[in-house]
Amino acid sequence: MSSKLWGGRFQKSAEKWVDEFGASISFDQELVLEDLEGSIAHVTMLGTTGILNQEEVVAIKKGLHTLQKKAEEEGLHYSIEQEDIHLNLEKMLIDIVGPVGGKLHTGRSRNDQVATDMHLFLKRHVKKTIALIISLQNTIIEKSKEHIETVAPGYTHLQRAQPISFAHHLMAYFWMLERDKSRFSESISRIDLSPLGAGALAGTTFPIDRELTANLLGFSDIYQNSIDAVSDRDFIIEFLSNSSMLMTHLSRLAEEIILWSSEEFRFIELDDSFSTGSSIMPQKKNPDMAELIRGKTGRVYGNLIGLLTVMKGLPLAYNKDLQEDKEGMFDTLHTITGSLRIFEGMIRTMNINKDSLNKAVHNDFSNATELADYLVTKGLPFREAHEITGKLVYYCIERSNFLLDLSLEEMQQASPLIESDVFKVLAPETAVRRRNSQGGTGFEEVRKQIEKAQDILSSLISM
Amino acid sequence: MSSKLWGGRFQKSAEKWVDEFGASISFDQELVLEDLEGSIAHVTMLGTTGILNQEEVVAIKKGLHTLQKKAEEEGLHYSIEQEDIHLNLEKMLIDIVGPVGGKLHTGRSRNDQVATDMHLFLKRHVKKTIALIISLQNTIIEKSKEHIETVAPGYTHLQRAQPISFAHHLMAYFWMLERDKSRFSESISRIDLSPLGAGALAGTTFPIDRELTANLLGFSDIYQNSIDAVSDRDFIIEFLSNSSMLMTHLSRLAEEIILWSSEEFRFIELDDSFSTGSSIMPQKKNPDMAELIRGKTGRVYGNLIGLLTVMKGLPLAYNKDLQEDKEGMFDTLHTITGSLRIFEGMIRTMNINKDSLNKAVHNDFSNATELADYLVTKGLPFREAHEITGKLVYYCIERSNFLLDLSLEEMQQASPLIESDVFKVLAPETAVRRRNSQGGTGFEEVRKQIEKAQDILSSLISM
Amino acid sequence: MSSKLWGGRFQKSAEKWVDEFGASISFDQELVLEDLEGSIAHVTMLGTTGILNQEEVVAIKKGLHTLQKKAEEEGLHYSIEQEDIHLNLEKMLIDIVGPVGGKLHTGRSRNDQVATDMHLFLKRHVKKTIALIISLQNTIIEKSKEHIETVAPGYTHLQRAQPISFAHHLMAYFWMLERDKSRFSESISRIDLSPLGAGALAGTTFPIDRELTANLLGFSDIYQNSIDAVSDRDFIIEFLSNSSMLMTHLSRLAEEIILWSSEEFRFIELDDSFSTGSSIMPQKKNPDMAELIRGKTGRVYGNLIGLLTVMKGLPLAYNKDLQEDKEGMFDTLHTITGSLRIFEGMIRTMNINKDSLNKAVHNDFSNATELADYLVTKGLPFREAHEITGKLVYYCIERSNFLLDLSLEEMQQASPLIESDVFKVLAPETAVRRRNSQGGTGFEEVRKQIEKAQDILSSLISM
Amino acid sequence: MSSKLWGGRFQKSAEKWVDEFGASISFDQELVLEDLEGSIAHVTMLGTTGILNQEEVVAIKKGLHTLQKKAEEEGLHYSIEQEDIHLNLEKMLIDIVGPVGGKLHTGRSRNDQVATDMHLFLKRHVKKTIALIISLQNTIIEKSKEHIETVAPGYTHLQRAQPISFAHHLMAYFWMLERDKSRFSESISRIDLSPLGAGALAGTTFPIDRELTANLLGFSDIYQNSIDAVSDRDFIIEFLSNSSMLMTHLSRLAEEIILWSSEEFRFIELDDSFSTGSSIMPQKKNPDMAELIRGKTGRVYGNLIGLLTVMKGLPLAYNKDLQEDKEGMFDTLHTITGSLRIFEGMIRTMNINKDSLNKAVHNDFSNATELADYLVTKGLPFREAHEITGKLVYYCIERSNFLLDLSLEEMQQASPLIESDVFKVLAPETAVRRRNSQGGTGFEEVRKQIEKAQDILSSLISM
Repeated sequence: MSSKLWGGRFQKSAEKWVDEFGASISFDQELVLEDLEGSIAHVTMLGTTGILNQEEVVAIKKGLHTLQKKAEEEGLHYSIEQEDIHLNLEKMLIDIVGPVGGKLHTGRSRNDQVATDMHLFLKRHVKKTIALIISLQNTIIEKSKEHIETVAPGYTHLQRAQPISFAHHLMAYFWMLERDKSRFSESISRIDLSPLGAGALAGTTFPIDRELTANLLGFSDIYQNSIDAVSDRDFIIEFLSNSSMLMTHLSRLAEEIILWSSEEFRFIELDDSFSTGSSIMPQKKNPDMAELIRGKTGRVYGNLIGLLTVMKGLPLAYNKDLQEDKEGMFDTLHTITGSLRIFEGMIRTMNINKDSLNKAVHNDFSNATELADYLVTKGLPFREAHEITGKLVYYCIERSNFLLDLSLEEMQQASPLIESDVFKVLAPETAVRRRNSQGGTGFEEVRKQIEKAQDILSSLISM
Repeated sequence: MSSKLWGGRFQKSAEKWVDEFGASISFDQELVLEDLEGSIAHVTMLGTTGILNQEEVVAIKKGLHTLQKKAEEEGLHYSIEQEDIHLNLEKMLIDIVGPVGGKLHTGRSRNDQVATDMHLFLKRHVKKTIALIISLQNTIIEKSKEHIETVAPGYTHLQRAQPISFAHHLMAYFWMLERDKSRFSESISRIDLSPLGAGALAGTTFPIDRELTANLLGFSDIYQNSIDAVSDRDFIIEFLSNSSMLMTHLSRLAEEIILWSSEEFRFIELDDSFSTGSSIMPQKKNPDMAELIRGKTGRVYGNLIGLLTVMKGLPLAYNKDLQEDKEGMFDTLHTITGSLRIFEGMIRTMNINKDSLNKAVHNDFSNATELADYLVTKGLPFREAHEITGKLVYYCIERSNFLLDLSLEEMQQASPLIESDVFKVLAPETAVRRRNSQGGTGFEEVRKQIEKAQDILSSLISM
Repeated sequence: MSSKLWGGRFQKSAEKWVDEFGASISFDQELVLEDLEGSIAHVTMLGTTGILNQEEVVAIKKGLHTLQKKAEEEGLHYSIEQEDIHLNLEKMLIDIVGPVGGKLHTGRSRNDQVATDMHLFLKRHVKKTIALIISLQNTIIEKSKEHIETVAPGYTHLQRAQPISFAHHLMAYFWMLERDKSRFSESISRIDLSPLGAGALAGTTFPIDRELTANLLGFSDIYQNSIDAVSDRDFIIEFLSNSSMLMTHLSRLAEEIILWSSEEFRFIELDDSFSTGSSIMPQKKNPDMAELIRGKTGRVYGNLIGLLTVMKGLPLAYNKDLQEDKEGMFDTLHTITGSLRIFEGMIRTMNINKDSLNKAVHNDFSNATELADYLVTKGLPFREAHEITGKLVYYCIERSNFLLDLSLEEMQQASPLIESDVFKVLAPETAVRRRNSQGGTGFEEVRKQIEKAQDILSSLISM
Repeated sequence: MSSKLWGGRFQKSAEKWVDEFGASISFDQELVLEDLEGSIAHVTMLGTTGILNQEEVVAIKKGLHTLQKKAEEEGLHYSIEQEDIHLNLEKMLIDIVGPVGGKLHTGRSRNDQVATDMHLFLKRHVKKTIALIISLQNTIIEKSKEHIETVAPGYTHLQRAQPISFAHHLMAYFWMLERDKSRFSESISRIDLSPLGAGALAGTTFPIDRELTANLLGFSDIYQNSIDAVSDRDFIIEFLSNSSMLMTHLSRLAEEIILWSSEEFRFIELDDSFSTGSSIMPQKKNPDMAELIRGKTGRVYGNLIGLLTVMKGLPLAYNKDLQEDKEGMFDTLHTITGSLRIFEGMIRTMNINKDSLNKAVHNDFSNATELADYLVTKGLPFREAHEITGKLVYYCIERSNFLLDLSLEEMQQASPLIESDVFKVLAPETAVRRRNSQGGTGFEEVRKQIEKAQDILSSLISM
């Protein structure tokens, strides 16, 4: 006779390798604590509502607590024959408490059970993710505070554009992370819903109390529609979308760290603990972690597109396709958690070469906008000022020097409006200092920006 | 001499086909009104702050209003030589108002200008999208109200599972759309920020007033970091993510409509206005629109992965890669807008075959759970009840009949606990009626659910 | 002191959790046999060319054979401290044979080593995949041969379109798989290239013999450019693309199997060994495996987009991002291998309900095209014939009957061209039988098609 | 009465905006010439087989030729009322030749018609794509020939690794393109099949001759299964996969061109005709085209995932979802065609700064491997040689100099094995010259490699 719990109308059981292909226990065991937690809440409710008697409830609860303790302390041993975490635990429970363990399933289906596990799990881990984001934001603030007046080249098209405060550049990532945080935070309201009690799809005839189990599990609300409750995987897709965006941001910073670490830039040096060497080239100090995280962006995008594909065109309610919701979520969580921790350490310990940065901004044309703006203030229309400046830049390139290397006479040949006050204007520090439009790179504005950022974080902590 | 506005240091201009490949005017002309709106706000501010004098401001504004009127009434003629919408409009402005038009560019770059256009555009259209979602939700509620007591098969694994209220099934989509709406709504706070004044990347030395332009354009706040302001495309990715989720939902409903319209199901008949025929098979009435929208899910996913790919590993600040942010956004907007409108009409006009549904639920085993639950209430552990029921189902299958066709004696052979009250329990209507757990398919619960849904929508409208 | 092999210029080693994040040993251990095989070829060549002396070669080879035996028989124990499979094996080798083991690395880098492993691995497994495809094709042929004259509804838009031979429908999948096979086969020429000897990126100054190692490893050719050799991952992307297409095909068949297994269609019954039941609904027989494979399509698409994302914009040559090439490949391989095996068994054992199919084709309008074509042969332009038929269909629908239920008189009211020979024309069997255009569903054509398919497979086997 | 050609059984026609949403004429008009070509072949065959009489054939053909001429010379005017290119052309034909035009549709459905158009179109354009790839390969060869002895830094992890021949680096892209070419070429056998005659899905009862139409259209073979013929979109997905891989390669080269054009690298200067300036920063010379193509990688990936999503889980045969196969294909074709042309011009005209490259290789540690290898040839195990070299590198870094700046005594302190011949070994030119392993960067090997590449291209041309 089949050992499967649903074997009644079946004459034949599947071959072992088929079972293995369909089984989820190899990965859904990660939900063991959430599954036990959900079961404890469910059986408590079965007692409160009188669906089970107190004796039954006590017996089952004791068994569940035993399993909980064992899972936390030594781990449980799962069998592929029991398909998934739910049936594994049910069998273990029955082994401990006897046939009464079977009553735990009253008024519940694996469909609402697994959905409950996922909601519990993700709510917990999104909160942890937010904490890691805050930690990285704090590190960015600390690093930025040290480099408000560190002048660095600002880029567009990876060409030097205008000199900026290095802190201003770093702080751009603070705001990206701030948006990531707000997306993850807002998503919680859609995770924080209890599907428990939705049954297979239609609810149940047993007089269950869904509000009670939701409260016991710390959920803010319940799903209003049982079919939706068991077939919704929005909250996971949303997690994967938010994670994809986060990884996009980290991949941008990773790219910059890789560039800055190159011999050509030499803007920063990563700490040895976040670099690796080469098995063949002794001189190498590779920004491996930044590269790896840039690469891991791919798997998170892949996990997102994977689950979107699964859900496309799927009729209601539960379909086995939905089993595919888990591995991508676990993998993504592992990836973003690790990436955030690595970045926090990498940024915190990295050394910024002020000398290289200073040398860089004095040997380029990133002060050309200053000259154009200078001409505008002398009364030229912007387009004409732009044209004159462009010609002076070209004149310098042909002579392999820079604007500050020109004599006043040379400049005046291009435009008689230029006077000796131009030299101060062309100094990179002046260029940065004067960009004090709101949110600009002027040192004062950057200082304000950092204060605002600190206020945001401290208001969160005090909450 | 080059006609390009940035030609100063260049000795040679690109060939025409190269320019065409790089030009965006063929698609970014969709931003014409937003671009003009942004320019009007910008020049107003240049006047208020004294950067331009009143004469200049009046002249430029007049020119912009002329263009605005023309764009709305007859459309403008764009030239590929001017690359993009910004340079096209600037040239038209200069053609109208003379060289002073060039001063409009003071303290502004195309980088913050295009970002401003995109924010204005998307904010407007996300709000329209939300209105369309509400409209579809209303239609779902109306349709559901007509079918609270229409009993239909409920499915898991596309196998009949348990009978349900047809309204309950439809309402599942209400809640999916409700989540879509909340995601789109929450995204607005991240769209509703003004990047104007961020300049090329670093802000500007002109004494501009970013709060003022933000107010004039109806933005709630400004970007706090100029580099972030010009290189952020999160708000578009988030729009594409939210749209992907929406399309996932519509694709699921599309799949069901296609199934329900098939000869095999015959649960609904689509209105002629949302169906098409075949050029070769005269009998066909194809649910084309549902199929097409199911298919269009692909392009929206594609647009999402497209922009994620663009952004991956991109160093700060602006890079030309960012020009690729537009077409996918326009295409997605067009797709979701059309899809929502089609679905609204399709659901509103579709005819539900109560007879077919009624016949269906009386000719299947979806009442088997009732029997199992019945046995549990008679004191059997669930697993045992399940086993017995499974055997009775198999017994029926072998005889090509259903549970309600069995005699009491036949049933009692399977379990002596079964009594004559079983027949009432097995009636599909009873099965539905009794599933009155919160959010379940019981008629009463469905009624409450619909009321709750109506409350949600009306509280929105009164806002 | 650091135990890392590249520690020379480093003052500090990474923290354990950082190492863990960067380590690949948890998954690249799957390459253990390929890595040893590659090393044996390499050291053999080092001996032949005199780079190492015979004593050294003998010692190292002995150590490698010991590891090989152990890996096959009992498995090796890997340490995360040694990062990856290469360093793990190198350390094990040195533990066995002493410092001479370090010489194995002469003229080789991990960059060409890991590329070699991947090529060896994938070549082997693509061949296995092809064998599994052939096996499924054979099963499709066998099943088709039994059902050449089984008449079934043919669908477009999931609406019944024209009656077809069930074998014809099944055979459509044979040709899809045939294309999959040709793509996988052709890809081998791009996998079957040896990167060994490319060094870190530039080749080596040691007088190695790349042709020799290529021959020893069974490669058909070597990479012509050492930089390309270490940075190419095309062959993996191509594998993922081909696998995505294969999964697309399987997902389509899965969808049909799910539809056909529903109560509404009842066209097939899956064998119990490829179905599962429900923990709560005793009557359920779910086509779980088909659903699961349909769902697994998502992860394969995701793996494809994941690696494409990794490679996008990556400068030459090796970057740590490339470490992300492995897990998606292993996962995809596991997925397609399992899916092909499951489908083979599922198709082989499924039962086709000829009765249901027969009943279906006699109760629909899929013979309407016959009537239109009949009218064309009587001289009407097609569009007119189509119009008349459409009206007769509508006439039937209003009376809830079908074309064959109409009297000759009723038909003649629609068109006087209709005569009594129409009834034979309208019989579904006739409709199928007469569609003997090449590749059509006519029984004779289907027979020819199956013969052609068999010829293709047997010509392969005899190769 | 409805003007739709399939209106017979319909009582109501769709609203205009619904029709517009479903219509494909806005984009499938790109297939106009292929559609006419297919129709001419079809009607020719209808004549040859006697299905239509000669008079009818002559009339229809004349009409089709008229349309063909007009389409080529002045373009046709399409109407959204006629949905798609097929119905538009059919209506135009009837307008020209009268009702007999309706007979063109005999024995053909839009399903096989559109598939035929797509096959014709794609076959043509894949061949053009291959020609563009060859053109770019030729340019790479020409550029490489000029820079065989240009020594440049070779990178791994974007850290300088070993000096290489610049030609060697460039030639890596030749081989990537070679694989692209082979994939596109091999795909042709799967495009070059005629679906014409497959009808709606099942073939036809008319005595058509599919071999004849295939021959007339230049197809090598016909689809063996009519259902497969109308529902297969593999050939488009394969095109999108191959295009994605091509874009991956171009994105890598684009990234390098962007890096090399930066002030930090200055390895190349792009020609003015492939660069653009800034509207605000006069000094800028942006590698816009490289950035844009790097960005356009996203849309091609998106088009791939889009169509994969469309096809996932789609039951046979034709479904309206398939209409979504076109826009992504057209867009991808436009993208890769333009990108290949741009790259050809960009590479051909770019200037390589030998001075910068030379300066670079003399100011880094990329000769460290030479020292390690040198120590190995003096008898040290590789790992020990690596360790010693690493320490010398660190010693240099602390003193801000390079290996060639050390005295023999300093080196001998690290290892007494070092002798005065070390200085020659450490010269970058020597390092490159000596890497003459097959496919290595040694000048001789690069020369051979280029010859091999030239042979490959010329053998193609002579074919």
